[in-house]
Amino acid sequence: MSPTFRFAVNVTPKAGILDPQGRAVEQSLSHLGVGGVSAIRVGRRVELTVEASDAAAARSVVERLAGELLSNPLIEAFGIEQLGAASSLVGEAAR
Amino acid sequence: MSPTFRFAVNVTPKAGILDPQGRAVEQSLSHLGVGGVSAIRVGRRVELTVEASDAAAARSVVERLAGELLSNPLIEAFGIEQLGAASSLVGEAAR
Repeated sequence: MSPTFRFAVNVTPKAGILDPQGRAVEQSLSHLGVGGVSAIRVGRRVELTVEASDAAAARSVVERLAGELLSNPLIEAFGIEQLGAASSLVGEAAR
Repeated sequence: MSPTFRFAVNVTPKAGILDPQGRAVEQSLSHLGVGGVSAIRVGRRVELTVEASDAAAARSVVERLAGELLSNPLIEAFGIEQLGAASSLVGEAAR
């Protein structure tokens, strides 16, 4: 069995793209009495486990998924993080 | 003016909580011809700028928001990252 690697893909709206969820969070802040918070952007975070021969091969699978399935390249940017064994889903990642 | 700090809050479904978006992504993988990917969890990523006297004070604001506004503690866990000046929103963060 090949080793498994756990990654996170962070998808965020590109600068200049309207972000209604971010605006909604900003409007909620006054109800909580919180000031000094700005530039809120709301995106998605997808965590996944990839079985591959090595970390580089696993990352290339994640890059393809991030660009083709998990983000809309017209309006969103993505970043990829490799997670350690301390992932919140260690049990599932090891299955 | 106080310095500003940029953070990300990663909100993910707790282990054992149903994650229909994650299931949907898994079902899409076969259409892309991608194998070896499992344990997909879909959550949110919120990036925000906090103006505060120091990084510790800024982080405590973020912790409060993460627990009270950005996540549902019954079904979601959150993690906080401090982002560097290389954030995708440097221009807005500096405003």
